[in-house]
Amino acid sequence: MSRQVLITDLTIDTGVQELLGKAEQENIETAFQRAKEQEPHCKFGLTGVCCRRCLQGPCKVTFNGNKGIKRGVCGATADQIVARNLLSLIVEGTTPHVEHAREILHTLLETAEGKAPYEIKGKDKLISIGKKLGLTVDGVELDKLAHEVALIALQDFQQQSGVSHWLRLRAQDKSIETWEKLNILPSNAHLEIANAINKTAMGCESDPVSLLLGIMKMGLVEGYDGLHLSTDLQDILFGTPRLVKTQYRMGVIKEDYVNIAVHGHIPMVSEKVLEWSRKLNDEAKALGAKGINIVGICCSANELLMRQGVSVATNYASQELAIITGALEAMVVDAQCIMPGLAQVAECYHTELISTLPNIKIEGASHVDWTPEEADKMGEEIVRRALAHYPERDQAKVQIPEGTVEAYAGFSVEQIVELLAALNGADPLLPLIEAIAKGDILGVVAIVGCTNPKVKQDLANTEVAKELMRNNVLIVATGCSAHSLGKNGLLSPAGLEYCGEKLANVLTAIGQANGLPALPPALHMGSCVDNSRIDDLLVALANRLGVGVRELPVAGSSPENHSPKALSIGTFFIAQGVDVHIGVNAPITGSPLVEQALTANKGEFPVTTDELFGGKLIYEADPIQAAQTMIARIIQKRKALGLVCPETTESAAE
Amino acid sequence: MSRQVLITDLTIDTGVQELLGKAEQENIETAFQRAKEQEPHCKFGLTGVCCRRCLQGPCKVTFNGNKGIKRGVCGATADQIVARNLLSLIVEGTTPHVEHAREILHTLLETAEGKAPYEIKGKDKLISIGKKLGLTVDGVELDKLAHEVALIALQDFQQQSGVSHWLRLRAQDKSIETWEKLNILPSNAHLEIANAINKTAMGCESDPVSLLLGIMKMGLVEGYDGLHLSTDLQDILFGTPRLVKTQYRMGVIKEDYVNIAVHGHIPMVSEKVLEWSRKLNDEAKALGAKGINIVGICCSANELLMRQGVSVATNYASQELAIITGALEAMVVDAQCIMPGLAQVAECYHTELISTLPNIKIEGASHVDWTPEEADKMGEEIVRRALAHYPERDQAKVQIPEGTVEAYAGFSVEQIVELLAALNGADPLLPLIEAIAKGDILGVVAIVGCTNPKVKQDLANTEVAKELMRNNVLIVATGCSAHSLGKNGLLSPAGLEYCGEKLANVLTAIGQANGLPALPPALHMGSCVDNSRIDDLLVALANRLGVGVRELPVAGSSPENHSPKALSIGTFFIAQGVDVHIGVNAPITGSPLVEQALTANKGEFPVTTDELFGGKLIYEADPIQAAQTMIARIIQKRKALGLVCPETTESAAE
Repeated sequence: MSRQVLITDLTIDTGVQELLGKAEQENIETAFQRAKEQEPHCKFGLTGVCCRRCLQGPCKVTFNGNKGIKRGVCGATADQIVARNLLSLIVEGTTPHVEHAREILHTLLETAEGKAPYEIKGKDKLISIGKKLGLTVDGVELDKLAHEVALIALQDFQQQSGVSHWLRLRAQDKSIETWEKLNILPSNAHLEIANAINKTAMGCESDPVSLLLGIMKMGLVEGYDGLHLSTDLQDILFGTPRLVKTQYRMGVIKEDYVNIAVHGHIPMVSEKVLEWSRKLNDEAKALGAKGINIVGICCSANELLMRQGVSVATNYASQELAIITGALEAMVVDAQCIMPGLAQVAECYHTELISTLPNIKIEGASHVDWTPEEADKMGEEIVRRALAHYPERDQAKVQIPEGTVEAYAGFSVEQIVELLAALNGADPLLPLIEAIAKGDILGVVAIVGCTNPKVKQDLANTEVAKELMRNNVLIVATGCSAHSLGKNGLLSPAGLEYCGEKLANVLTAIGQANGLPALPPALHMGSCVDNSRIDDLLVALANRLGVGVRELPVAGSSPENHSPKALSIGTFFIAQGVDVHIGVNAPITGSPLVEQALTANKGEFPVTTDELFGGKLIYEADPIQAAQTMIARIIQKRKALGLVCPETTESAAE
Repeated sequence: MSRQVLITDLTIDTGVQELLGKAEQENIETAFQRAKEQEPHCKFGLTGVCCRRCLQGPCKVTFNGNKGIKRGVCGATADQIVARNLLSLIVEGTTPHVEHAREILHTLLETAEGKAPYEIKGKDKLISIGKKLGLTVDGVELDKLAHEVALIALQDFQQQSGVSHWLRLRAQDKSIETWEKLNILPSNAHLEIANAINKTAMGCESDPVSLLLGIMKMGLVEGYDGLHLSTDLQDILFGTPRLVKTQYRMGVIKEDYVNIAVHGHIPMVSEKVLEWSRKLNDEAKALGAKGINIVGICCSANELLMRQGVSVATNYASQELAIITGALEAMVVDAQCIMPGLAQVAECYHTELISTLPNIKIEGASHVDWTPEEADKMGEEIVRRALAHYPERDQAKVQIPEGTVEAYAGFSVEQIVELLAALNGADPLLPLIEAIAKGDILGVVAIVGCTNPKVKQDLANTEVAKELMRNNVLIVATGCSAHSLGKNGLLSPAGLEYCGEKLANVLTAIGQANGLPALPPALHMGSCVDNSRIDDLLVALANRLGVGVRELPVAGSSPENHSPKALSIGTFFIAQGVDVHIGVNAPITGSPLVEQALTANKGEFPVTTDELFGGKLIYEADPIQAAQTMIARIIQKRKALGLVCPETTESAAE
């Protein structure tokens, strides 16, 4: 395989391609190569039928229906093994978000108590949530109100019975009815996590249907005490995002600046690094640089982009390549999606890889401890270290791919409503609902999740989006998938060229009513925890229409999923009755029962999430086919609502 | 392979051998066969270097040092993958015990509130714990005191900081100092579980040393809010065990009785089944049976044996064979170590397999819900179902292997102290300490854990025990390992034939002072959660001697481990400074770093649990060699304490 073929097969990002060439020349290994090295993959692992839950095995059972061994040593069948493994995977996806929420909760508590150097910037959000929680808000001091809100949230980690407060706060009543009937309303996030692990433990639960309901319950933990709680409390602390303009691609790393990349998920860390980069900006000038430049990677990027307009260097699969530019003085990481391989790459440059969370240590990284109380100390120390590394930069090793792409972001629900209010101040959702009803907007699809070095970076994320846009589907986006769209112009009004005419007209009308050329065809709604915002939008639309969320002509899509978090987020949306597409298969095909229950594809097993919740899993590697499948479902839901439907949809593949 | 060779290779239990023959004739599959079918095992899985934490893989890295792939797609090394997998496994071992403790906690709360049909039978234990927790006990009603104790325990599932109350209650101060220095004191069991999963999640913690400290911390969660909390609250509710005599082996199933097997771990279920079997005994007589006979399997057996003298049919690996006798009307299961294969076997007989816990459903079983409030309803319903099945029994299918073995059990610390008090009422531990000091007792080893169909049932458990006894090591035992000893006469004074002369004399003296022929050479201390009793004994001995637990000439051994629970219990003891032997390898050999850190064997990595805690892991499949390794360590610790040491030890292998 020639080098050229190899590199252009790995990513559609030309900046990343250029840096992969540099890595090859410098003999530096990256995730893209390692992904190829792991081929062929173990079929038992891929299909979910490998069990290592105890020391009687490892066991592997048949995945082809007829031949092979049918049961593990304990007697577990493929259905049982796959269901248990999937529940474990969903727990591994949910827990980091729940712990993220708990970190922000404690930060808010300490801020309200005057112990942590943060301030409550999201007054409107705080008052709105306080009201919804039934608290007195009039005349109450912000700190006191924030403290009360945080203490209610804390009950979601302490109560031994009852229903999650954040679920009651954010879920649609019709959905709650469904979940109550199925007895899957979660109580306390930590308790539910322990409960789920107890189910999957050796010799515990073996009923696949009960395990599947456990998976759906874990999806609700993910949604409410992971995603929603994180977003709500972050908005209280850092403010609700508003429309911003920013730049994308590796070119945002600036040769004549001290460059610090923030990578991970926890804005309490990245906000402080940004704050101190501004405070110490003049010290960079004293070193001969033009200043300090903060760039983002993964969801730390999203958090700073949404609220501060900070530019984005790259997304998950190419995180190592940012260091290979040779121009990063520091990469600051907190939690989740941090490749252990970063340390090996950073060793080849002057870049200091710095971990920050007390509980998340990275081998080969230095560590500057973040705690809410010591957040300023951390911010200053990290920026000072970056400044100290600037003179160590080896100019001969610097190569920053040229060019950046403009993007809009900051589309919180509040911001979307405000933009719509320019068309109808009294009933802002009405213009959107009318556009959907008339078919000017066929439906709404959320493009979310990851990139995955196993598949060509950014290709499926952008192709699914373009095919949907072409068919007048409005895109909302979060996470690394939003970055894929951003790098390729789909978060900018320039992306309207990919839209069907009707959608383009709607977006132009809303944009122009707000003094913009147009809205972009994909609205960037934030980080992965901000999938809560998408949920809020769906609940608002459904309530305004007087229907259930499950009836809306919408879907979710994670075309390049790699993280179990994408699966737990997907589970949350399926529990609401929203179909979820994934482009990289989860390990479920070893069990006809589990596959059928989730995908409603094969008809061998009578219980499906589609029947119980109104949503199902769509596995489809081909982006055009995936888009068409979602469109077909959207049209089916439109028909059920009695909305105008196009005769056929137009496919780029046809 | 001829049938005879096969069956006698699988177990030393002749009753189980007989039933394996019956199973073969009736074409019924069991775990013993399935264990052979799974050979050869996946080497990546066996050595811990297979990673399925995200959808970039599955990844496998090299396990032979030089050849092969060194990193997973994310860049994770073998050290990182093995350490993360091991932490996951320890979490899967710890969580069921923690949830067990929480079940009993809520049962105690509801009992104290008069809502659940249990009574507080362990007045002494309640008062003793109440005092240690600093509560007023004089003149306080038992229910009120129990409620206060339970609410303190509940804080160990709710507090967001501080140290586990049950750790403070039960741990030796010297151990706490060590753990505090290493910053591994746990706070809240559920929080620590979530925290550990967060560490192991994709892209989170990658530092193997930090992961190993996380493993040790999880061991403390296991020890205090799993084992100790379960035992203490169970003793409060059901009473502290006292010396009982019982019978072992399949022969305890009686042809002329209605037979109900209780299997699992949760005494709130099995105690109620026993209670109702006594209440409804006459109804069995009306059916022509002599009465209702309750037999135990796994730790449900241990709980009823320790407190009620109920006889034990069999242990983990042969659980399915109890049904193959054809004489069980019902098998009642709750949680943990329940083979999914039981359902398939039960289908071939009239036996009803009944699951009970709301959160643990078993495919193919019927379900009678246990809740604290509805416990009587459950007990009655289950016994009535068993009665109804008695006329359905097919006499042609009945074959119960003949013969039972007598055993003593009920050796709580309180019972041991009371027995010793017959020698020295003022200072009961002194006779034991003097015997250890003089070398009449060389040391104490706990034989704990499982049986595992991967290895010949009961062989290693009994061989390790015999070799130690021969060398005057006192054995204490719990779990399914205790059953191995019981089935083979080592829980009876008859077992003294295997003891060295010095040990035999000590056991005879203590026994005769209490009107018994002798104490057995292995003291049965209870179920797997009752490893807490062994810990209490060690702490009492160490405190009486004024030394740390880590200095005691003791060890733990799980020769036939299969469950991750055995590993988490082992981790707890290593954290106290006690060497722990396992006979079936845990998946750690793929990482030189992790293996060295735990076993202190290879010297390639400087940090070991032996240095930090004073205890290490001993992996040794050969039982005689394992015993000799523990004896060598015991002698080393005796020397350090300045105690008499034998010149050499006597080995059966020599």
